[in-house]
Amino acid sequence: MSTVNSQDDEDTFKILVATDIHLGYLEKDPVRGNDTFVTFNEILDHAQKNEVDFVLLGGDLFHENKPSRKTVHSCLESLRKYCMGDRPVQFEILSDQAVNFHYSKFPWVNYQDENLNISIPVFSIHGNHDDPTGADALCALDILSCAGLVNHFGRSTSVEKIAISPILLRKGRTKIALYGLGSIPDERLYRMFVNKQVTMLRPKEDEDSWFNLFVIHQNRSKHGATNYIPEQFLDDFIDLVVWGHEHECKITPFQNEQQRFYISQPGSSVVTSLSPGEAVKKHIGLLHVKGKKMKMEKIALETVRTFHIEDVVLADHPDLFNPDNPNVTQAIQAFCMEKVELMLDNAERERLGNPHQPEKPIIRLRVDYAGGFEPFSIYRFSQKYMHRVANPKDIIHFFRHRGQKEKKDIDLNFGKLVSRPTEAMTLRVEDLVKQYFQTAEKKVQLSLLTERGMGEAVQEFVDKEEKDAIEELVKFQLEKTQRFLKERRTEAEEEKIDEEVIFCCTHMHRKRSNTCRNDIFTTVVRKMVDIISSYPFHIGLGKSTRMGQA
Amino acid sequence: MSTVNSQDDEDTFKILVATDIHLGYLEKDPVRGNDTFVTFNEILDHAQKNEVDFVLLGGDLFHENKPSRKTVHSCLESLRKYCMGDRPVQFEILSDQAVNFHYSKFPWVNYQDENLNISIPVFSIHGNHDDPTGADALCALDILSCAGLVNHFGRSTSVEKIAISPILLRKGRTKIALYGLGSIPDERLYRMFVNKQVTMLRPKEDEDSWFNLFVIHQNRSKHGATNYIPEQFLDDFIDLVVWGHEHECKITPFQNEQQRFYISQPGSSVVTSLSPGEAVKKHIGLLHVKGKKMKMEKIALETVRTFHIEDVVLADHPDLFNPDNPNVTQAIQAFCMEKVELMLDNAERERLGNPHQPEKPIIRLRVDYAGGFEPFSIYRFSQKYMHRVANPKDIIHFFRHRGQKEKKDIDLNFGKLVSRPTEAMTLRVEDLVKQYFQTAEKKVQLSLLTERGMGEAVQEFVDKEEKDAIEELVKFQLEKTQRFLKERRTEAEEEKIDEEVIFCCTHMHRKRSNTCRNDIFTTVVRKMVDIISSYPFHIGLGKSTRMGQA
Repeated sequence: MSTVNSQDDEDTFKILVATDIHLGYLEKDPVRGNDTFVTFNEILDHAQKNEVDFVLLGGDLFHENKPSRKTVHSCLESLRKYCMGDRPVQFEILSDQAVNFHYSKFPWVNYQDENLNISIPVFSIHGNHDDPTGADALCALDILSCAGLVNHFGRSTSVEKIAISPILLRKGRTKIALYGLGSIPDERLYRMFVNKQVTMLRPKEDEDSWFNLFVIHQNRSKHGATNYIPEQFLDDFIDLVVWGHEHECKITPFQNEQQRFYISQPGSSVVTSLSPGEAVKKHIGLLHVKGKKMKMEKIALETVRTFHIEDVVLADHPDLFNPDNPNVTQAIQAFCMEKVELMLDNAERERLGNPHQPEKPIIRLRVDYAGGFEPFSIYRFSQKYMHRVANPKDIIHFFRHRGQKEKKDIDLNFGKLVSRPTEAMTLRVEDLVKQYFQTAEKKVQLSLLTERGMGEAVQEFVDKEEKDAIEELVKFQLEKTQRFLKERRTEAEEEKIDEEVIFCCTHMHRKRSNTCRNDIFTTVVRKMVDIISSYPFHIGLGKSTRMGQA
Repeated sequence: MSTVNSQDDEDTFKILVATDIHLGYLEKDPVRGNDTFVTFNEILDHAQKNEVDFVLLGGDLFHENKPSRKTVHSCLESLRKYCMGDRPVQFEILSDQAVNFHYSKFPWVNYQDENLNISIPVFSIHGNHDDPTGADALCALDILSCAGLVNHFGRSTSVEKIAISPILLRKGRTKIALYGLGSIPDERLYRMFVNKQVTMLRPKEDEDSWFNLFVIHQNRSKHGATNYIPEQFLDDFIDLVVWGHEHECKITPFQNEQQRFYISQPGSSVVTSLSPGEAVKKHIGLLHVKGKKMKMEKIALETVRTFHIEDVVLADHPDLFNPDNPNVTQAIQAFCMEKVELMLDNAERERLGNPHQPEKPIIRLRVDYAGGFEPFSIYRFSQKYMHRVANPKDIIHFFRHRGQKEKKDIDLNFGKLVSRPTEAMTLRVEDLVKQYFQTAEKKVQLSLLTERGMGEAVQEFVDKEEKDAIEELVKFQLEKTQRFLKERRTEAEEEKIDEEVIFCCTHMHRKRSNTCRNDIFTTVVRKMVDIISSYPFHIGLGKSTRMGQA
């Protein structure tokens, strides 16, 4: 693949490429709360100054599935400020927009809406943080798209089969086929690829004259056998893949050895985990496309908070630290303090002078204390850096690597967004389910709540704050139970069952607004088990005098 | 006040007036879930068909302080669909918009924004349901206003003093001074009025040539001594008050006997409580203003679900019901069923034939069973109407009025929005606070959490889903406690205190995402009490070697 001439002309698309902006990440943090908004503005400012044709985002524009009012408000503010205006948009859309944006209430690209004066169209797929959830399958991007400020694309509605229809763009003599695929659980997408259920549709005419650009938001590095998308799964007619989700900046297009295509991984624009991958200098890209040629220009982000991470293995310094020395802990602490001071110096030197870049750096010192050492008090240590570091509470991370080699230390993985600490809750609720489940199973041999359905509901409830996920599942199961119990019953028995179910629903409904979700959940599951146990059920035993009612 | 000629001309403002639309009310209800959205569309459709100059809303456009994604999405959809377009807006704004919309990120009226093509500007104050909350004091309307679809006005930033600056509008020779005051707790506003802290600014020139229109969202009927706003508090230069919050439709302007002004109370466009006030036929208004003359044209809403309410006093029918009859309960049930059938007939007759009006009516039969009667099973009764009534679970309301005359039955109040059933929670948390509070008080004589601050935080937490209200208060109190404890301490003692506080915060922070709010709260308050108890504090006893640090 050759590069575009440095001279852009009326045939050259200029596309600003960015991903994983995670608006609202740590928004309550008094020090870091504004970081994501500042950098989003910087990104849009680059788009404006470079007079790009459009902005292309690779998912996770929002950190939370249900972003706060403040986050949505700030995002709308930035988009309205930077992406509206009189500069005319220079490309046209050749594909059927009703197909490209079929799930939208306004199924056309925003810059062609007569009521909106858009200067920079933003095209975005959704990520795993801001994916569609709930009964209406809406996501945060849909708010922006309904307000006319973003073009949300790449959304598939089936969970078994995907046919990706590209948005076809033309500027002068250059034609781009823009393919997008919003985040899908990796295992599911892996399975679909293996079963040949993912198709990328191609324009009928002049198939080879298009520059094929694909945006995806999945695991790129292998986490378990099917928990990622191998690059070679992707069609080889593609020219460039913009890969979101992975936070390490590897934006310079890198050719896949087996396929013909290039992959650009822009990486996140904010540090969301204290791992080495996030310490790589963050960039966005200015992609020039002319005919079938492209050039990715790197733009260093200047407002990202500096992040320095280092490792210390205490056992590697036998000259300095002797575990038998009663003062060894103080010595270790002093050593770490020296290290942190050096890191602070480096961070200061690295600052770029952008007035919007926040001052305090993020500092992480990972201390391997294997070999008979004791960790010192992190609280005391943190206190010293309260005013100099953005993350005083977690500057130091103690771990034991040596002698634990059989266990993989998750925290040592590079460039991967560490999932949020919700395991405790998940386990707790799931245990509860299993417990009740077993009781129910023993008594009535009824598969009341499948582990799978419940697992997914719990996940939605916890990760996406989808408050009704559990309730909806329970309701669905209640109705199923109700129908099931009523089979071969007398009318009087049926009435009693209905009464119990109504009571159960009312109870759940009343509890909704004023108690903790766990309580509701426990109460309802308990009630369901009670209902079932109080109607000893044996197939074929009941008597039937059913009336003809639904 | 005389009325406008039926012939509107270039000097006549046409204003669509509505209030309390409560978007998202019961949105999860499979039967009634869509009602608010359907009627909002009807209202905007009337605005469009009548070619009004603008829409004026009196607050509570949203039912929830943090409306769901679906609700925000539907609202944006309706506004974009009905309020954007090419029809030119015919009036101009003479006041300083930077003053009128000072809290907005785009402090100008939306129809003058060059990037938005607005055909119907919407002006709205906020209500008590959708008022600003949280650290950023944003409200749901601010999302709409940031998206350029609503002009949110009438917001005061001080809690002690209010000066209302009108938006000055001119169309031809008619000039309107539009005053707005978003919802404020009644007691607070009452106090401000009494203390002469509410001022309505008037235009300097031709003071008397303006039509003065005031929109307010407060209790109009008296609930306790200072828990409403007496009409005579309002300035008598006003011509017309549009009064929101009260749900009973009394839209025809009614002259206050003492003052010169008229009051129009449009009422809600959806039934949110099963009280007689809500059963009054619902309307919106088409207000014509020419010079100092006005006319309020009533428009009956056709998509509102029919609502019928009736009362039965069993003791009034000694011929029918004898408490000593063993079958009296069945007789009562049969009687109620007959009543409900009649109400259903009436409801059917009243339907207006609008295809968007939902079919099933809301039916409420209030049964006073005083006099030795027993209520029958509501569940069984409900079941009979499952497919014919929109509210099967609460068709029947049993109460005992006779013999309880010393107690006021709240459910008998007319036309008042009954507050949501959150008392249980409020009491529970407040009890908790008091309990810990007393412990703390006994031990250290320290006013740890003022009841007032806590009460407000709990209220925000419960009513507005302001998840951080309690946390923020606790944090604030923690910092206060920290400073307080550190006074006259040695450096080592200070460090220990800091450590404890950091632990406490970390603990709270960690708990945030995966447990119930009550738990966090309990844990943190408990921890605070522990901290305080472990440092026996006596004024004047501590030793001081403080370093010069903040």
